Amino acid sequence: MFQTFTAATRPEDGLPRLAALRRELVRDGLDGFLIPRADRHQGEYVADCDARLAWLTGFTGSAGFCAALRDRAGVFIDGRYRVQVKAQVSPDVFTPVPWPETKLADWLQDALPHGGIIGFDAWLHTADEIGKLRAGLEHTKITLIATENLVDRIWADRPAPPQGKITAYPVELAGKTSAEKRADCAARLTKADQRAAVLTLPDSIAWLLNIRGTDLPSLPVAQAFALLHDDARVTLFTDRAKLAELPLDPQIEVLDWSAFDAALLALSGPVRVDRKTAPYAVSTLLADAGIKLHYADDPCILPKACKTEAEIAATTVAHLRDGAAMVEFLCWLDENAPSGSLTEIDVVRALEGFRRATNALRGISFDTICGTGPHGAIVHYRVTEDTNRQIATGDLLLVDSGGQYIDGTTDITRTVPIGPPSDDHRACFTRVLQGMIAISRARWPLGLAGRDLDALARMPLWQAGQDYDHGTGHGVGVFLSVHEGPQRISRVSDTPLESGMILSNEPGYYREGAFGIRIENLIVVQPAPDLPQGDARKMLSFVTLTYVPIDRRLIDAMVLSAAEREWLNAYHAATFEKISPRVSASARVWLAAATAPI
Amino acid sequence: MFQTFTAATRPEDGLPRLAALRRELVRDGLDGFLIPRADRHQGEYVADCDARLAWLTGFTGSAGFCAALRDRAGVFIDGRYRVQVKAQVSPDVFTPVPWPETKLADWLQDALPHGGIIGFDAWLHTADEIGKLRAGLEHTKITLIATENLVDRIWADRPAPPQGKITAYPVELAGKTSAEKRADCAARLTKADQRAAVLTLPDSIAWLLNIRGTDLPSLPVAQAFALLHDDARVTLFTDRAKLAELPLDPQIEVLDWSAFDAALLALSGPVRVDRKTAPYAVSTLLADAGIKLHYADDPCILPKACKTEAEIAATTVAHLRDGAAMVEFLCWLDENAPSGSLTEIDVVRALEGFRRATNALRGISFDTICGTGPHGAIVHYRVTEDTNRQIATGDLLLVDSGGQYIDGTTDITRTVPIGPPSDDHRACFTRVLQGMIAISRARWPLGLAGRDLDALARMPLWQAGQDYDHGTGHGVGVFLSVHEGPQRISRVSDTPLESGMILSNEPGYYREGAFGIRIENLIVVQPAPDLPQGDARKMLSFVTLTYVPIDRRLIDAMVLSAAEREWLNAYHAATFEKISPRVSASARVWLAAATAPI
Repeated sequence: MFQTFTAATRPEDGLPRLAALRRELVRDGLDGFLIPRADRHQGEYVADCDARLAWLTGFTGSAGFCAALRDRAGVFIDGRYRVQVKAQVSPDVFTPVPWPETKLADWLQDALPHGGIIGFDAWLHTADEIGKLRAGLEHTKITLIATENLVDRIWADRPAPPQGKITAYPVELAGKTSAEKRADCAARLTKADQRAAVLTLPDSIAWLLNIRGTDLPSLPVAQAFALLHDDARVTLFTDRAKLAELPLDPQIEVLDWSAFDAALLALSGPVRVDRKTAPYAVSTLLADAGIKLHYADDPCILPKACKTEAEIAATTVAHLRDGAAMVEFLCWLDENAPSGSLTEIDVVRALEGFRRATNALRGISFDTICGTGPHGAIVHYRVTEDTNRQIATGDLLLVDSGGQYIDGTTDITRTVPIGPPSDDHRACFTRVLQGMIAISRARWPLGLAGRDLDALARMPLWQAGQDYDHGTGHGVGVFLSVHEGPQRISRVSDTPLESGMILSNEPGYYREGAFGIRIENLIVVQPAPDLPQGDARKMLSFVTLTYVPIDRRLIDAMVLSAAEREWLNAYHAATFEKISPRVSASARVWLAAATAPI
Repeated sequence: MFQTFTAATRPEDGLPRLAALRRELVRDGLDGFLIPRADRHQGEYVADCDARLAWLTGFTGSAGFCAALRDRAGVFIDGRYRVQVKAQVSPDVFTPVPWPETKLADWLQDALPHGGIIGFDAWLHTADEIGKLRAGLEHTKITLIATENLVDRIWADRPAPPQGKITAYPVELAGKTSAEKRADCAARLTKADQRAAVLTLPDSIAWLLNIRGTDLPSLPVAQAFALLHDDARVTLFTDRAKLAELPLDPQIEVLDWSAFDAALLALSGPVRVDRKTAPYAVSTLLADAGIKLHYADDPCILPKACKTEAEIAATTVAHLRDGAAMVEFLCWLDENAPSGSLTEIDVVRALEGFRRATNALRGISFDTICGTGPHGAIVHYRVTEDTNRQIATGDLLLVDSGGQYIDGTTDITRTVPIGPPSDDHRACFTRVLQGMIAISRARWPLGLAGRDLDALARMPLWQAGQDYDHGTGHGVGVFLSVHEGPQRISRVSDTPLESGMILSNEPGYYREGAFGIRIENLIVVQPAPDLPQGDARKMLSFVTLTYVPIDRRLIDAMVLSAAEREWLNAYHAATFEKISPRVSASARVWLAAATAPI
C-alpha cells in the first residue's frame, strides 16, 4: 500500500521538542523562530527529513507554519485544518491560529509589544513571503533575521535525505527532447535579457531535463536545484549518486548540492529568479554579491503546462487504464457496500488494489479522500484508524483519488449512493453535475482565464442558493504533480487558458454534518472545432480525459436540459466504448447498466 | 425632436481651420497641439462650445482626439468609428489613426524623430492620460507642455457656454438629503485622512447636491466643479446665474468658475483627486503649491451607484411609463413596417413621439440607434439623412433607445423581424435571448464582479462559435447618465456588484453586412431571497426594471430549457399585467398577443 492509516505523529512529543527548541532560542539570543511546512522547493509534498513542522508540533497538514516564541507557540492553519489540528497538537503547548485571517505580523506584534528578534531559515521561505512579513513589521520593533535552522540542530534522529534513483523520461511520451525544451526556455531568457534562471522547483527540473525521480511520495521527481543558462546549458545540483545509471547530455553538468552557492555567485546578471517559489536565500546571495536580479516566473512553468501532443496521447492512455481500474472498483463497491460491513479504509485499500492490478501503478497521486456520510463534507478528509467510519445505507460516499503512471497522472472523484438516495441527495447531485457538464461543454474565445469560466460551474448551485468553497479546477501534470500551475478554473485565476493545458473539473456541494458531493473529471484545453455559422474568431474548448460512469441513481433527469442530457448520454456511450474492452466480464455487465442512456 | 438627422459638421471646413491652427503653432514655437474630444468634465456628452474636436476635424464620435502637427494631423479613433471618420473628415487634411492599436507616443515619435514640443490644454486631459503619454515619450526628445488652448484662440464664432437653469432634485425621489450624502462622503474623507476632495464630474455634483441641470444633451446636469470638505461643506463653482431661483443649504457656498484656482490653492492637504477623471491642471496647481495629493476615486461614484430604495421605486415607475411608450411604438411598428414605406428616420421620429406623448419626457438618454438589415450590425449606428435606409421585408430591425424622466433614466433594445424571419435569424436571436435570460436569472455570492458573470451571457453563443464584441452591461443612473460607473458586466470589470446598482443586460450578435441582434433590459442588484435548502451564505440577484415584450416570432422555443421558458413566460405575464393598464385599447390587444406564453 502507498497509503497508510496510522497517525505519523503524537501530540505528546510536542512538549519536550518545543522545550529543546526554546533552549536554542535562548542560546542564540532569539525571541522566536519560524518553522514552515515547506522544504526548500516549496512543493505540496515534502520528504520525511523535511517534515519539520510535523516533527515539532504534530500537525501534518499540507500547509501552515509555526511561530515558536519563548512564552508561546502559534500553529497557523487554514480553514481546511481547523478540526485536524485539534487532534494532532497538544493544546497546552501549541495554540492553533486561524490563518490567513490572523496575519503573522499582527500576531508577533501582539506577542512582542516591546520588540524582539525572530529567526528564520532563509532556504525555507520565499522572497515574497519574507518581503510581505517585513512590510507587515515595518513600524514595529520586531526584527527578522536569517539564522541556522534551530529545528535541524535539535532533531537528533532526523531521517537522511532521500536518495531515490533518477531515471530518464522517454521522449516518445514527452514529445520534446530536453535539448528542445532547454533551447526554448533559453530563448525566453535571451529575449528578456537574462543570462540565467535559477530553478528550484523539482517538477520544473524534471520536465526540463526529461527525468523523473523517486524522492517524494505522490510526486515522481528528484530533489534538486538547477541553473539554466542563456546558451541552453544546465547545471544540476543534487546528490550525484541518484544519477549513477543515467547518461545525461554533455550540456548538462551535474554538481553536488554543496556547489550551489558558489555557482550562484559565479553568475553574471541579470539572473531570473521566481520570487514566489525560490528560497529567500537565493535572492540575498545574488543581491549581496551585486548580481542583478530579474524577478519573473520560473521559465518552465508555462511551457510545462501546455502539453505536447505526445503527452496528451500518453495521458489519454493512462486515463483509460485508470478508468478501467475505477470501473472494477465501482462494480466491486456496488456489490459489497450494501452489506454494511465495509469501512472507509476497506474502500481505500480496495481501490488501491484495483489500480495496482493494472501492473502499471507507480504511486498514487495523493492520499485517497474517502468520506462517507458526514465525512464527505470535509473537503480534505483523509481517513485514519481513528476516524474510520462504517459505510451505511443512506450514506453518500465520496471518493477522490488518482494514480501516477509513467504515461500520466490521474485525478478523479465519484460520489456513490449507498442504498436508495434521498430526493435532496439527487437534487444537489444533479446541480453539481449540471455545473460539471457546463464546464465540459464550454467553448470560449481565446484569451479568457479560468476566472471567466468559473461561474458556469456554479450557476446551477447558485440558483438554489448553494455553492462550494473551493476552486472548480486545478492544473495537472503528466507523470508529475497532480497540482500544477499556472492555470486554474477559479475566481482568483487571471492566467489565460491555452491549448494543451490539463485541468480538473470538479464542482461539489457540501452539507456540514450530513453529506458531501463532488464529481471530477480531467479535461484538456484544445482548439475548438469550427462550426458552420460560427464567427471567424478563434475559440478553445475542453476535451475530456476521464471516462468513468457518473452515478445515474443520483441524477434527476427531468432537471437536465436537452443539451445536458445529450452530453451525459454521449459521455456514457463513449465510456462504455472505451472502457468495456479493458475490464472483466462482470464489470462489463455492470458498466453496460451504469452507462445506459437516461 | 431631441434627435436630429443632419450632419453637424462639413469635411471641407477642416482645411482652413487646421491652417489657422498651424499659424498659432508657429507663433507659439510649438511643433504640435493635442485636441481631445473631452471637455473639462471628461463626460460622454459635451456642450457645443466644447466640441473642439468636431469643430476642427469634422469628426463627431463620442471618443477620440486629434494630434495636429505642422506637417500632418492624425485623428485617433477606435474600432466603432472607422467607417464614420472617413465620411466626416477630409482625407487630404486629416489622417485617421487606428487607436488604441497605435499609441500616440509612438505616432509622435515617428512624426518627430528629432524631437519637438507638443502643447496641450491641461484642463482637458486627466493626470492619468498625461502620465501615460509622458511615460511613452520618456526616452525621446519630444517634450509635452501645458499651453493656452490654441483652438479656442482661433474659433471665432465659438458658442457661449451653456447657461441651463439648475433645479432642485426632490428628496422623495433621491431618498437621501444632500446633507446626508455630504455627511457620508465627508466621513469617507476623514477616514482616509483627507481634508477635501476635488469633484469635477457634473453627475457626481448633481447627485451630491440633489440638483439637476440642462447644460448638456441627454445628461441632465450642470457644468460645475466642486470642493467637498471633510466637515461636509461644499464649495460649488459654476455660473451663478444658473442657480438664481434655487435656495441652497448654507453649507453650500457658490462661487464663479473664476474662483476655482484660488480656492484650490487655499486648501490644506491631503486633498483627494481622481486621477482618472480630474483635469491634469488640478494636480499641477496643487502639487506646485506644495499641497499634498491623495489619488483616489471620486468619493461620490460608489455611493451614487448604489441606489436608494426611493431611487429604485422611482425608476421602476419611470420604466413602466417608458415601457408603455415602447409598447405603443412596437404595436405601431408591427402595423406599419410591413408596408415597406418606412425608413429608419421614420421609426426614430415615431419612437420619440410615443415617448413625448407620456408628457413626462425630459430628453432622450442618447440618440436612438435604429438599424435595419446590415445597419443593425453597426453597433453604434446613428442614422442621418445620408445613411437613412428603407425598412424592407426580410430585415431584422434593431432599435436601442432610452428616455430621461425626472424619476429615472431608461435604456432598452428590442430587435424585431420585418416579415417572416429566417431560421438563421431565429437561431441567433434565441441564443442571444438565452444569454440575456441567464443574466436575468443569476444569483451569486456576495463579492463577485461583473467579470465573474459575463460568461453566463455569452455561453449560448460560444457554444455555436459566436460572440459579440462589446460588454454585456453598463451601469445606469437615475435621471442622470445612461452610462455610469463603477459597475459593469464585462470581462474587464473587477468592481464587486453591490445591492442597488442598476445595470444594462444587453447581449447581442452581429453579422457584418447582414443583420444585428441585441436584447436589452435594465436590471438592479438586490439581496437574493432565501431559499429552503440554500446555504447560510449571503447572495445577490437581479430584479428586472424593463417590461416590454421580447419578440416571440424570433424565438425557437424548442431550444429553450424548462427554466428559460418559465422565465420568459413569467416575464411576459408580468409585462402584460404591469403595462396593459397603461396603453391604448389597440396596443392592449397587440400586447396580449405579444406576451402570450410559448
